[in-house]
Amino acid sequence: MRLRGRKGIRENLESQQDIVTLDPREHKGRWAEWFGNDNPIYIELGMGKGQFISGMSVKYPDCNFIGMDMYDELIRRASEKARGIWMEQGVDLPSNVKLALGNIESLEEFFAPGEVERIYLNFSDPWPKSRHGRRRLTHPRFLDKYRSVLNEKGEIHFKTDSLTLFEFSLNSFAATGLQMNNISLSLHREGINEEHVMTEYETKFVGQGMNIYRCEVMVGNEALRKYQEHKMDQF
Amino acid sequence: MRLRGRKGIRENLESQQDIVTLDPREHKGRWAEWFGNDNPIYIELGMGKGQFISGMSVKYPDCNFIGMDMYDELIRRASEKARGIWMEQGVDLPSNVKLALGNIESLEEFFAPGEVERIYLNFSDPWPKSRHGRRRLTHPRFLDKYRSVLNEKGEIHFKTDSLTLFEFSLNSFAATGLQMNNISLSLHREGINEEHVMTEYETKFVGQGMNIYRCEVMVGNEALRKYQEHKMDQF
Repeated sequence: MRLRGRKGIRENLESQQDIVTLDPREHKGRWAEWFGNDNPIYIELGMGKGQFISGMSVKYPDCNFIGMDMYDELIRRASEKARGIWMEQGVDLPSNVKLALGNIESLEEFFAPGEVERIYLNFSDPWPKSRHGRRRLTHPRFLDKYRSVLNEKGEIHFKTDSLTLFEFSLNSFAATGLQMNNISLSLHREGINEEHVMTEYETKFVGQGMNIYRCEVMVGNEALRKYQEHKMDQF
Repeated sequence: MRLRGRKGIRENLESQQDIVTLDPREHKGRWAEWFGNDNPIYIELGMGKGQFISGMSVKYPDCNFIGMDMYDELIRRASEKARGIWMEQGVDLPSNVKLALGNIESLEEFFAPGEVERIYLNFSDPWPKSRHGRRRLTHPRFLDKYRSVLNEKGEIHFKTDSLTLFEFSLNSFAATGLQMNNISLSLHREGINEEHVMTEYETKFVGQGMNIYRCEVMVGNEALRKYQEHKMDQF
């Protein structure tokens, strides 16, 4: 039976403590314990309905994935998606994907310094009005938060369909002194790139022929060192 | 009488030694002498028919402008444009604009280190085939040349209508460790920006509703310092 109403959703989520947490603070510094291994932890901030994080968890079984969102209804839908996609693989209980209810403003309360290896930002709210610029997830104040939880290999992978958010983000990465890599102004122009797992939005937008913008940001020292070694290969 | 044929063009240009040089090597380290003052020198590499460089010279009389191109026919057209636009101002001999025939490959032979304060790259050939990547004027090997002639306030101002060239250029600036500023993915989306003098191409493209991409790159230490001081104002 599909539960309806906020109370129903909460009860549903509380019954899913194998893959859902309503209080990510409890896991701070101990996510590896919950996953039961030391594989790198990749998180998606604002995961929406969870297509991306679930797809990634199947595609990369040697990584741990956490999808975070502030809306419990989305956590519920993402949990259905994660269980469903793993069920198709013949697995009853997904072991490398967790879903966390949380506000990104409090990111440092959820993760210890260096606990995260990669942050995915996919189709974040563009907050088009300039007075809302501080809410954009690539605003320098958020980049500071990300830096404080990422490890030495830490990277941020960002994609969006919003020209204005991408433009803002490039300027924000530049101003923060972060090293950008693989900037793409039209991700799928040479056909769908199988390497990239797509989000719900992306599937829809690409189908409509819309542009997807993408950029990687090297944060950790080891990520930077590796980039420096290979950066000229692209020219 | 309008001269035709290569020989005719050369003769025409040789008769214009007040504003045209066919051998910019002769002026290396002594451009200020030719201009007759110490105003900053801004150069446009690949100036085409000269609308931009002429317009800039009228708009900013306290700067010196050099338009460079490798095609003598374009130098001829640009000289007509420059004389014409100054004539409209009631000036017979433009004093702050010079036109130079030269191949950008040899830039360091035309300018002494620190002799140039700003480089404009407007609608450069995108060289879309990847095997021609080294010919793109924002390839790292050209950026090295630019660095060697720019002074402490040195900046590169780049605009293009080519998505692929802009994408390539952002990655090239990033890989070269150059500080980007004012990245714009749609320069004229809020109407024509009067601050920017437009090129022939630009006038045409904007009229067709096409996107113009633009970016500034801070090269000199003083340009960088000033950027660092003010970079957070945009957020």
